[in-house]
Amino acid sequence: MLPFAEAFFFMTSQLPKSQAPRVVILGAGFAGLRLARKLANKPVQVVLIDKNNFHQFQPLFYQVATAGLAPSSIAFPIRKVFHKAANVHFRVAEVNRIDTASNSIDTSIGPVSYDKLVIATGADTNYFNNKQIEAFALPMKSVQESLFLRNRILECMEAALVADSVEERAALMNVVVVGGGPTGTEVSGALAEMRSYVLPKDYPELDFSAMQIHLIEASPRLLGPMSGVASKRSEDFLKSMGVKVEVNTLVESYDGHMVKTKDGRTFITNSLIWAAGIKGNILEGIPENLIVANGRVKVDRTNKMLGSENVFVIGDVAIMEEGNFDKGHPQVAQVAIQQADRLYVNLLNELKGKEMKPFRYNDLGSMATIGRNKAVVDLPYIKFQGFVAWVFWLFIHLMSILGVKNRLFIFLEWMWNYFTYDQSLRLVIKQKPRDGEASAK
Amino acid sequence: MLPFAEAFFFMTSQLPKSQAPRVVILGAGFAGLRLARKLANKPVQVVLIDKNNFHQFQPLFYQVATAGLAPSSIAFPIRKVFHKAANVHFRVAEVNRIDTASNSIDTSIGPVSYDKLVIATGADTNYFNNKQIEAFALPMKSVQESLFLRNRILECMEAALVADSVEERAALMNVVVVGGGPTGTEVSGALAEMRSYVLPKDYPELDFSAMQIHLIEASPRLLGPMSGVASKRSEDFLKSMGVKVEVNTLVESYDGHMVKTKDGRTFITNSLIWAAGIKGNILEGIPENLIVANGRVKVDRTNKMLGSENVFVIGDVAIMEEGNFDKGHPQVAQVAIQQADRLYVNLLNELKGKEMKPFRYNDLGSMATIGRNKAVVDLPYIKFQGFVAWVFWLFIHLMSILGVKNRLFIFLEWMWNYFTYDQSLRLVIKQKPRDGEASAK
Repeated sequence: MLPFAEAFFFMTSQLPKSQAPRVVILGAGFAGLRLARKLANKPVQVVLIDKNNFHQFQPLFYQVATAGLAPSSIAFPIRKVFHKAANVHFRVAEVNRIDTASNSIDTSIGPVSYDKLVIATGADTNYFNNKQIEAFALPMKSVQESLFLRNRILECMEAALVADSVEERAALMNVVVVGGGPTGTEVSGALAEMRSYVLPKDYPELDFSAMQIHLIEASPRLLGPMSGVASKRSEDFLKSMGVKVEVNTLVESYDGHMVKTKDGRTFITNSLIWAAGIKGNILEGIPENLIVANGRVKVDRTNKMLGSENVFVIGDVAIMEEGNFDKGHPQVAQVAIQQADRLYVNLLNELKGKEMKPFRYNDLGSMATIGRNKAVVDLPYIKFQGFVAWVFWLFIHLMSILGVKNRLFIFLEWMWNYFTYDQSLRLVIKQKPRDGEASAK
Repeated sequence: MLPFAEAFFFMTSQLPKSQAPRVVILGAGFAGLRLARKLANKPVQVVLIDKNNFHQFQPLFYQVATAGLAPSSIAFPIRKVFHKAANVHFRVAEVNRIDTASNSIDTSIGPVSYDKLVIATGADTNYFNNKQIEAFALPMKSVQESLFLRNRILECMEAALVADSVEERAALMNVVVVGGGPTGTEVSGALAEMRSYVLPKDYPELDFSAMQIHLIEASPRLLGPMSGVASKRSEDFLKSMGVKVEVNTLVESYDGHMVKTKDGRTFITNSLIWAAGIKGNILEGIPENLIVANGRVKVDRTNKMLGSENVFVIGDVAIMEEGNFDKGHPQVAQVAIQQADRLYVNLLNELKGKEMKPFRYNDLGSMATIGRNKAVVDLPYIKFQGFVAWVFWLFIHLMSILGVKNRLFIFLEWMWNYFTYDQSLRLVIKQKPRDGEASAK
């Protein structure tokens, strides 16, 4: 290892010298990527860092998990976005810690200095410190985890074919989903459709009337942040599809086989999907006193980290008090995108010596899809459900996808799946780590 | 573990009892899948076993490796093929050994008995007992290995960006391909195209004129089994694309960094692609005296394993003396498919008490593609190269792909890549094994 100062000098040489101030953005999710794209070809040097070389379209993870979409359809190579932006430098790296005293961060590819730092590290699954559940449950917060989940479900069906007993077969076929937010609701619906249309054709030797899908939610209703009618209709949709919805139910433990709830009920399954909460991805070096429950960092109305002059936090990992949002904004893509847009204007304003303007969230509405022709949409002035909502959901998601090609391919996948009743990506493709593997560096 | 006899009785119960004779087919490659499809809804019970739940279209592995196609485009779920074939039972399993004395095989899901056994286990990479090369080289004989190779090449470019020295950067960017057969030739061409069209846009900070691609072949010419003109033209194509072709060159060692050849030359690279040979996947229980060099099993003209009454071997793992093919047929898809077709007729003939007819290989020709508008085709009565050959190659491969949807999506990918000069699947998606993972069974 080089001493810090020397390494620092060295690393700096890996990034082109620039007169422009350097904005380092950590994370290429909805917030970070949006900001970097806005800053392309502006009078700043942008260093964008992510641990993956692709942007992930989170709202469709559940379709990867249920074999409806290929991972490549919802993952977009970040470098491709910046082909025409000479001032944006992308690096694949893990960030170890930030050092606000020296205005630098320590990463797996060495230290990087900054003039402005933007933390957009997003959120990961929250197991609320339950180590047992963490060890056995299946999360769905990345393309990789969604693929893992897909593989698991298909492997369980293969194992069910040769199971030793009725009990073992039931455990292999049943799925329990914990968390009745959009992710849990959407994946429950998609699993129910697999059970109806796809799995019986693939596994004629199994009896799918015996396969149970449970959706467990701690609060009194599904899709809590949405309207009452959206909650009600989505529950009705799920029940009509054979999903057993258990509201007011808290999961206490899971040992890989049996789910126990606080009120003493048990469910047997080898596959527990955990979508019950998220926590911000906190970096070492962020002052402890600014971190509130579930890993969110306190920021002012310009997304500036409290007490800092040049560190900003945007998206899921930020918490801001604003008007009605006295406990922070919902951790959704819309907030991330709007905060990135506001910060973009503010950063350029600051360069010009102008004042920063406070962020104000404009809630454009929310939606969730439960199955074929079944979705719920809450817009500011109108709420609707069913087929029209489903078409609206498809349209909005298609338009939000990055890249013309991804949009085209997803559209074709959806049309194909719709008319054939067949998600055809039922492939268990696993990469095995190799022995004696030469490292890439 | 259950005692063998008990487990055997038990396992038999997992497969439906049938009056029809049971044909167990090991491997769902070109040979095994073809035979199982032919036997669908015929008066036999078919048990098809593969370690993956998908069939792989091997001729296009190199396009997955070079980010031109998604893995899902060339992998087809096997169960989908047999939706309307109640007599075909597919199982995902590893085969441990065959026991010809008791007419049964031992697998990871228990023993399976057979009336007829068909071994179609194909071939894997042959390192010719060089353990060091095996440890460090990158093979390309499965979808998974092709994805691994893609990830590796992209990771090396990321690492090159932050390399400590010019030498290290060169090692990270250079690629050496060993083996001038179709696989080596095609992947060399595809890498050269990435270097020309894609990588400079993704990595404007790297100097790709310094990136070297070497193709090393032991014999005097590329594409040995093809015509002289095909060899010549493919070498010309590669040279025009900047690939350094080294014929008459034997690789002696590779330590993950330096390739040494028998004539004393060295090449520096972190990425050595090994496509220099294959060996049959031999199962325990096949008599030693029937196994010849590179793991092929001796069969008679009806693909019956020598000395056996009810065990057949087809495809890459079989070796048959026939007419001009006194050292066996080429290990290509055409032979596998034609042997499956012949065996299908012979098995049904045998059931009817008719005589089996000997296999005769009908060589339909061969082809390879080197790049955009650059391919070589040898047909029985005509040989051609260049654009027309390239269109012919596209057409034949598209028509050979299983499934209308895969065909459509590959066609669209190809058109997209052709007109945009951009293979857009530059994603490093790796599945991490999880700690404390609950097993699927």
